[in-house]
Amino acid sequence: MTSEDDEYTPEMLARMSAMLRDFVPHNAALGLEVVRVSRTGVWLRLPYAEKLVGNPSTGALHGGAISSAMDAAGGLAVMAKMGKAGNIATLDLRIDYLRAALRGEDVVLHASCYKITKHVCFVRGTAYTTDENDPVAALAATFARKS
Amino acid sequence: MTSEDDEYTPEMLARMSAMLRDFVPHNAALGLEVVRVSRTGVWLRLPYAEKLVGNPSTGALHGGAISSAMDAAGGLAVMAKMGKAGNIATLDLRIDYLRAALRGEDVVLHASCYKITKHVCFVRGTAYTTDENDPVAALAATFARKS
Amino acid sequence: MTSEDDEYTPEMLARMSAMLRDFVPHNAALGLEVVRVSRTGVWLRLPYAEKLVGNPSTGALHGGAISSAMDAAGGLAVMAKMGKAGNIATLDLRIDYLRAALRGEDVVLHASCYKITKHVCFVRGTAYTTDENDPVAALAATFARKS
Amino acid sequence: MTSEDDEYTPEMLARMSAMLRDFVPHNAALGLEVVRVSRTGVWLRLPYAEKLVGNPSTGALHGGAISSAMDAAGGLAVMAKMGKAGNIATLDLRIDYLRAALRGEDVVLHASCYKITKHVCFVRGTAYTTDENDPVAALAATFARKS
Repeated sequence: MTSEDDEYTPEMLARMSAMLRDFVPHNAALGLEVVRVSRTGVWLRLPYAEKLVGNPSTGALHGGAISSAMDAAGGLAVMAKMGKAGNIATLDLRIDYLRAALRGEDVVLHASCYKITKHVCFVRGTAYTTDENDPVAALAATFARKS
Repeated sequence: MTSEDDEYTPEMLARMSAMLRDFVPHNAALGLEVVRVSRTGVWLRLPYAEKLVGNPSTGALHGGAISSAMDAAGGLAVMAKMGKAGNIATLDLRIDYLRAALRGEDVVLHASCYKITKHVCFVRGTAYTTDENDPVAALAATFARKS
Repeated sequence: MTSEDDEYTPEMLARMSAMLRDFVPHNAALGLEVVRVSRTGVWLRLPYAEKLVGNPSTGALHGGAISSAMDAAGGLAVMAKMGKAGNIATLDLRIDYLRAALRGEDVVLHASCYKITKHVCFVRGTAYTTDENDPVAALAATFARKS
Repeated sequence: MTSEDDEYTPEMLARMSAMLRDFVPHNAALGLEVVRVSRTGVWLRLPYAEKLVGNPSTGALHGGAISSAMDAAGGLAVMAKMGKAGNIATLDLRIDYLRAALRGEDVVLHASCYKITKHVCFVRGTAYTTDENDPVAALAATFARKS
């Protein structure tokens, strides 16, 4: 990347998507895909799947599936900001659930790392279906830099 | 239940365990089991599984799998406190990750609902492997009462 | 206000500033001032004061003073969004402390209410000194609508 | 201290109380007092005062005053656990507000540090008036070890 906002090429995204799933079994189980990555933010997609449903009467995805996906997006956002894969671990996170996703809707996870200190990285993000201004959930999280 | 701390019988637990998974597909995908339920707290088990791994080099479970399980435990704790299945939804939650679980270790989720107001229920909990005094994660959450 | 983003006039701001302090003794003790209010966000100022210092060797304001001010900003943001003073109460909040403010620096609190449901309002915000892109703290909070 | 739970003597508490206020101006402005300290937990008192009121019609203390006091209690709990005054800073905190304190009631802050890692300390706590089982607020927080 040559500037702050430079985005990864489609080839790089495809490779990251594969790595995200190949390296982390639970990300593969969730079906997570990398949509877009730049230094200032990342977007993942959590494709709708029956096994991720939390409320069968509405078909809404389980909040836990969304929080898992946001956690993954947050970690990727930290690496994108640092410009390299790093040894990081989620320290703590807060998720606000604003509304239920609907049956059949994929969820997009947008996260950005807005501050890095010596030992801690700060992340915020949102989860949405079709409109980022009508989010499903909001994230605030910190990640520890292990090395 | 005849008193504050009365526990459910093994038969009731088996039925709840089945319902937890039958009603919520994502709980079934996680393999969640009900271990113990009383008005003052619930215990679930998240059995170790390869597909839930977050870090293949250590075999540690994905933080997101643990947070999903804690969310489920929190919801069950609210119902146990209310003494009935209710229409509730997670409003927001905070999870602190204290250490990684080890390869092969099941995780136990302990949650209790310590306050119910007209519209909101407050929950705290811990996730641990063999020793509750050496937890893997800690939970603070609120749930909305929808009806 | 005639549109979503319409701002309050200087006269209205002066009156709100007076009310904020006259009605809430602790806001007066903190010295909080209303800087700007629109439906989509509010800005308060916490003027630097010796009695608010948390670390006398650096002169940095106490994190608690900043969180008190952010809580007040969050509540005002909810009312601005609703377009009226309402009976609300802070339900829970998360504050991330990103860096210390410096000796002598006022802190500006920017909060916006981005979602209102039947019983709960969701707020996010930042605290900064001179540059909102280099924040001192970040806020995620929920407020209960009591009536 | 000779064991895990040994408590400080009244003379030591009086000295700590003086230091808490002498060293931190905002703690003095809040009127914070040290009630009890052991390695496994600390108790502070926030004496009722008109200038700390958040809702003049009920006389309830401002949530921000309580969160400031809990933040201070959390920091002291970390030092008590480490057995020495340390260079620590609040990283992030979550406070749940369970009910309002009543006019004239002092608030007691109980905090304990339940986990210390290389760079981060984890704390939980409660604020209550007369009965710890009927808390006013609950705390989950992390502190960074700066040295």
